[in-house]
Amino acid sequence: MKLKLGITAGDTNGIGYEVILKTLAEPYVLDICTPIIYGSLKTANIHRKTLEGINLNFLQINKPEEAMAQRVNIINCTTDNLPVEFGVPIAVAGKAAFQALKRACSDMKAGNIDALVTAPINKDTIQSDEFRFSGHTEYLESEFGKGKTSLMMLVSETMRVALVTNHTPMAGVAAEITQERILQKLQVFNAALHDDFNIIRPRIAVLALNPHAGDNGLLGKEEAEIIEPAIATANEQGIIAAGPYAADGFFGAGQFRHFDGILAMYHDQGLIPFKTINMYNGVNYTAGLDIVRTSPDHGTGYDIAGKGIANEQSFRAALFAAVDIYARRKQNRELRANPLPIHEKKLNNRE
Amino acid sequence: MKLKLGITAGDTNGIGYEVILKTLAEPYVLDICTPIIYGSLKTANIHRKTLEGINLNFLQINKPEEAMAQRVNIINCTTDNLPVEFGVPIAVAGKAAFQALKRACSDMKAGNIDALVTAPINKDTIQSDEFRFSGHTEYLESEFGKGKTSLMMLVSETMRVALVTNHTPMAGVAAEITQERILQKLQVFNAALHDDFNIIRPRIAVLALNPHAGDNGLLGKEEAEIIEPAIATANEQGIIAAGPYAADGFFGAGQFRHFDGILAMYHDQGLIPFKTINMYNGVNYTAGLDIVRTSPDHGTGYDIAGKGIANEQSFRAALFAAVDIYARRKQNRELRANPLPIHEKKLNNRE
Repeated sequence: MKLKLGITAGDTNGIGYEVILKTLAEPYVLDICTPIIYGSLKTANIHRKTLEGINLNFLQINKPEEAMAQRVNIINCTTDNLPVEFGVPIAVAGKAAFQALKRACSDMKAGNIDALVTAPINKDTIQSDEFRFSGHTEYLESEFGKGKTSLMMLVSETMRVALVTNHTPMAGVAAEITQERILQKLQVFNAALHDDFNIIRPRIAVLALNPHAGDNGLLGKEEAEIIEPAIATANEQGIIAAGPYAADGFFGAGQFRHFDGILAMYHDQGLIPFKTINMYNGVNYTAGLDIVRTSPDHGTGYDIAGKGIANEQSFRAALFAAVDIYARRKQNRELRANPLPIHEKKLNNRE
Repeated sequence: MKLKLGITAGDTNGIGYEVILKTLAEPYVLDICTPIIYGSLKTANIHRKTLEGINLNFLQINKPEEAMAQRVNIINCTTDNLPVEFGVPIAVAGKAAFQALKRACSDMKAGNIDALVTAPINKDTIQSDEFRFSGHTEYLESEFGKGKTSLMMLVSETMRVALVTNHTPMAGVAAEITQERILQKLQVFNAALHDDFNIIRPRIAVLALNPHAGDNGLLGKEEAEIIEPAIATANEQGIIAAGPYAADGFFGAGQFRHFDGILAMYHDQGLIPFKTINMYNGVNYTAGLDIVRTSPDHGTGYDIAGKGIANEQSFRAALFAAVDIYARRKQNRELRANPLPIHEKKLNNRE
């Protein structure tokens, strides 16, 4: 039984369909998962026709249970006669993106799909009475968090960066940096590195908030008063965390290579170095939820939409990451579900 | 007549002397400038003895007028019997760093040295009644600014980044982002790129303050209300500036390669990508002042002080940059001092 992977089409005027279709056109992708696109058959075909050499046939289904292996399944989520206007932010495209996301979440809750990969939305046009969030991460936390905190992670072959604050305007960042929040994020990060990435004893670096890590309080007191105590508490709980590190030197001197994870205080602090170093293969992963959701680390790409030149590497990496994380997490949970009593382990070791 | 280059020794327990001496030990350096170290002969010799293969002879002088070409001149700025404790922040080391800086500035004001390269200070131990600043840049602005605004620039072969706010704690950054300040910085940046780097029509990229450049106001309004109007005003004044660009994608997609200068809103936003891309050869340049001052882009390096392993590339680049900028600026001022009337230029073009 291959994993059923929900894929939301995102904003229909961006590069979402393009990177999805380019990825699913590789036959080996269908060997590792059964994809279900949440979007619209008609829209998918409009996009497909702009792409030379992509000869996909879609299987339209009404619910995930009907999905067939080795096929690109698609569920119609919108009844609108949706126009495609490449690169243009329009309300119906935002609405279509939300309808796809809503349906996928509903199927996920019912246990009918196993993991989710989301193509980029336009954070402006998607807003409605049903969606008042600054991004996917925040929406999914409200849908699946059950009061738990989620963690926005950026993942590549070379580094894993997580954020204490996600889509917060800069004027509000400092106020959101609290001991409690940093500790929560460290706990989620540590668990995710262990359960989802199979790192037995993760080493986590924590970045400073202020320039020069506050320069002993001259350039800000959050390091001494908030970040250091949070790290100390995490250490007491058995989490291997160090810092706070001045962010510029940390990346400039290549220190990031010595850690399994890096906790940044705000969006650009984490994403600037991540994207500078990982140009095309970055994956956005929402850790800390009961479900597995990944996405590419780019936006709607309006400036290149419809031209056939979008690079699908990040979306493909997101798809693979979702499959891998789902498998590792399942395995780790099964291992923990039936642990041997400690005395039996000792006996086994003696033999 | 070679340029007289003042070099302040910085914190005496860090790697300052090491990178200075390694740089000045290259004979060709003395061919392009006459260096004058502001520090202490005794301290310089303590550091020299830790460095294998560096056989410098210093010429102790009392004032810059006595400096000799092809020699490493040194002016004693401290009467303290200064101990060297590698990697330890101590008050007397901070005091020595300040005394060197103060004397160099005094000689610069009197016109007895032409340009200044500063080794790193400990921003904590240097504080005193005479020095209440968050860094060299702010001190030099107060000494030489004459009410004008200075601009902190990071310079390498691949990029030039300048900052709207320098050593501001993150909690205060947003409040310091004003139209007036951005416009002032753009004016200084544009003039520096022209006069100091010989770029005739500089193209400047302006970064956004908020994640995703504010996402049409969802993640902050400074882009629409402050940064865009400032860029528009700069454009009206003939400055070629564009933006605001979301900082992560700007560096991730390599857009920085299309611009002569990049104006970042705050310290880490500019320095994280700068240092990630330019590991060893970055130079800090204080633009906008009547004097020329550069420094390496690293700190005191306490963790490696006294071990002989400090990389001097950034200091050497800072020294070369000071020499080059001084020469270009002098040339551009001479060119402007006696411009040909426009009708004569036209005549010349016809010939």
